[in-house]
Amino acid sequence: MQVFTHGSFATMGAESGGYGLIEDGALVVEAGRIIWIGKRVDLPADYSGAEQIDLEGRLVTPGLVDCHTHLVYGGDRAREFEMCLEGASYEEIARAGGGIVSSVKNTRDASEEELLASALPRVDTLLREGVTTLEIKSGYGLDIESEMKMLRVARRIGELRRVEVVTTWLAAHALPPEYKDDRAGYISDVVIAGLSRAHAEGLVDAVDGFCEGIAFSVAEMRLVFDHAKSLSLPVKLHAEQLSDLHGAVMAAEYGALSADHLEWLGQDGVDAMAKSGTVAVLLPGAFYTLRETVYPPVQALRDAGVPIALATDANPGTSPLTSLLLTMNMGATIFRLTPVECLTAVTRHAAKALGFADRGILAVGARADLAIYDIKHPAELTYRIGFNPLHARVLGGEFV
Amino acid sequence: MQVFTHGSFATMGAESGGYGLIEDGALVVEAGRIIWIGKRVDLPADYSGAEQIDLEGRLVTPGLVDCHTHLVYGGDRAREFEMCLEGASYEEIARAGGGIVSSVKNTRDASEEELLASALPRVDTLLREGVTTLEIKSGYGLDIESEMKMLRVARRIGELRRVEVVTTWLAAHALPPEYKDDRAGYISDVVIAGLSRAHAEGLVDAVDGFCEGIAFSVAEMRLVFDHAKSLSLPVKLHAEQLSDLHGAVMAAEYGALSADHLEWLGQDGVDAMAKSGTVAVLLPGAFYTLRETVYPPVQALRDAGVPIALATDANPGTSPLTSLLLTMNMGATIFRLTPVECLTAVTRHAAKALGFADRGILAVGARADLAIYDIKHPAELTYRIGFNPLHARVLGGEFV
Ligand SMILES: [Zn+2]
Ligand SMILES: [Zn+2]
Repeated sequence: MQVFTHGSFATMGAESGGYGLIEDGALVVEAGRIIWIGKRVDLPADYSGAEQIDLEGRLVTPGLVDCHTHLVYGGDRAREFEMCLEGASYEEIARAGGGIVSSVKNTRDASEEELLASALPRVDTLLREGVTTLEIKSGYGLDIESEMKMLRVARRIGELRRVEVVTTWLAAHALPPEYKDDRAGYISDVVIAGLSRAHAEGLVDAVDGFCEGIAFSVAEMRLVFDHAKSLSLPVKLHAEQLSDLHGAVMAAEYGALSADHLEWLGQDGVDAMAKSGTVAVLLPGAFYTLRETVYPPVQALRDAGVPIALATDANPGTSPLTSLLLTMNMGATIFRLTPVECLTAVTRHAAKALGFADRGILAVGARADLAIYDIKHPAELTYRIGFNPLHARVLGGEFV
Repeated sequence: MQVFTHGSFATMGAESGGYGLIEDGALVVEAGRIIWIGKRVDLPADYSGAEQIDLEGRLVTPGLVDCHTHLVYGGDRAREFEMCLEGASYEEIARAGGGIVSSVKNTRDASEEELLASALPRVDTLLREGVTTLEIKSGYGLDIESEMKMLRVARRIGELRRVEVVTTWLAAHALPPEYKDDRAGYISDVVIAGLSRAHAEGLVDAVDGFCEGIAFSVAEMRLVFDHAKSLSLPVKLHAEQLSDLHGAVMAAEYGALSADHLEWLGQDGVDAMAKSGTVAVLLPGAFYTLRETVYPPVQALRDAGVPIALATDANPGTSPLTSLLLTMNMGATIFRLTPVECLTAVTRHAAKALGFADRGILAVGARADLAIYDIKHPAELTYRIGFNPLHARVLGGEFV
């Protein structure tokens, strides 16, 4: 048993509607879970014999949750980024081997060890800011073996680093060149058949797809989701990023954990998500990188009571972003979320987007995953740009 | 004498027009200066007896230069940022003590020790990315004693940390409340009289002002610049940020080192700056935070051959940004500078904006200020968002 004292605790409890701040508080951990939290003066005498950890007035939040990443991939796209800024056309970039095809090729060519070695510095950057739960998607393999390789690497990250990793099967990310004339074949032989195999190996925690004109249709995603449901796997969807295909409505119909991006989401999607309790995961890093101009309908989501999460979308093409704190600032600066909404978006709501009710909050029964910061007020986390005030990370009650 | 070998050197020399990359290169340092640089195979035998430092293939750039910051100030503005996002009006924020007035009050109230303690974590964040030369402005004191206190803190940062600090007198930043009916009195009794005193104490390396409708006019800034010239101090100007007062034309007339912001700069300003060799310092952090929509005339600056620098503008109100690497990404993503331009903008051109020709490049005779990164290609510095690949910093030939 440990007792954390003299901290300011941003509990992020749903009922409070704010930070749920407990100043000069205390928090008691046993067997990795929070068993008591409150004002220090109210700390029951029973705990006075336990190990005491003096937080010296620091701010404590729930460990941060990055609920949408593509952290495992081969190569990078820095040269493509450069060519684009130097005025190269899409054709020239494609001829030079750029685009998602380049990430697919580099991911297929890389060994598990190579993928791991390249992902770890990105993972470590997130952990250094206070992340304790991390989602990682497949989606650059686009064949069964390579997709499974990506998720094996994701699992190994969870073993090698002190972080809880959640995996997502995203074979329906793009159509690989070898299937360009056989969309149905790709869906059935790779996305669906591969899902069964990956699931049998324990590699899959959820199933995702990219529903867009340049990727897969609502009808195609239904096939994938039907199979996910038959395996009792939760689903989620990249939806309404570049156009409104009403993917979020379909996802909500399947009780999706989340619908992600949502720049073009209409009122039908908002209403459907509110009804199904589907989390809206906004990804300002991609919005910023792509210089989009159509904003996600934040006010409509608020009005309908749809929980809003934020995530890095860390990926080599459209969001080479590995800072969840910067994502919070972008959520405020670009999408006009308040700092309370931004912190909720990377704690309680991000946890909900991964199907967890036992983290993202500081409450009795929750995991003792904490981020301890050298700041006075939680708004500073969102306000600052490119500054990391993390003092320490606690995972299941242990300093890590 | 030290010999750095097996590095990839981005020399950023003016003649190359690119990174000036030397692959598998070597660099020789004596007495803090570069005395030889070239291909490793061409390294003269004379140096073979010297200490060898194996860079193991890493990328070396000139130490980064942040040429426009307001890193020393009291308090922060996180709550004001939050109130604004929660829908408070400017009046409500002002009534709650917000705005620049709050930074002025907190700076005046703070001791030198307090200002130093609050600035150091921000400074350290910049140094950890590879910054070796740093400009720091006054401008939140707005009385002689408080402005001098800020610059004393800036000088102490240069003593306490392994970084070259350059100071700037910016008393002409805003009109303090006590002078609201006496603009001329503020210019003569505080800005000009204070400059003489601060200069006599050795606190001033350059003189700056905020030339804008909400700050000071071109005519007022001329009085300040005339005095700076009489003390043989170089000048620079915050110009054309929110409107076109033609401040840059006036600054160029005084041979200003730089004109900064420049969103509203017209062709007259571009031409004048090209003629005087004045550097255009672009500040994307402020543009991003203020959600500006008028872009600096990047193509016109390029066409005219005006050197473009980038800086954090680190300040509590409009750019709470302490990452020069992120500033490079913003320069590319928001202002469409190429990665070569972005790296030039925080090395050679930023050095020029501070009046230095002996840094910001890797060349014989230059200071041996280096940033050593764990990356393969210099474009990665600009491409990534919220990722720090720094391996080590070298200041005057020493690892620091
Ligand atoms: Zn994604
Ligand atoms: Zn400034």
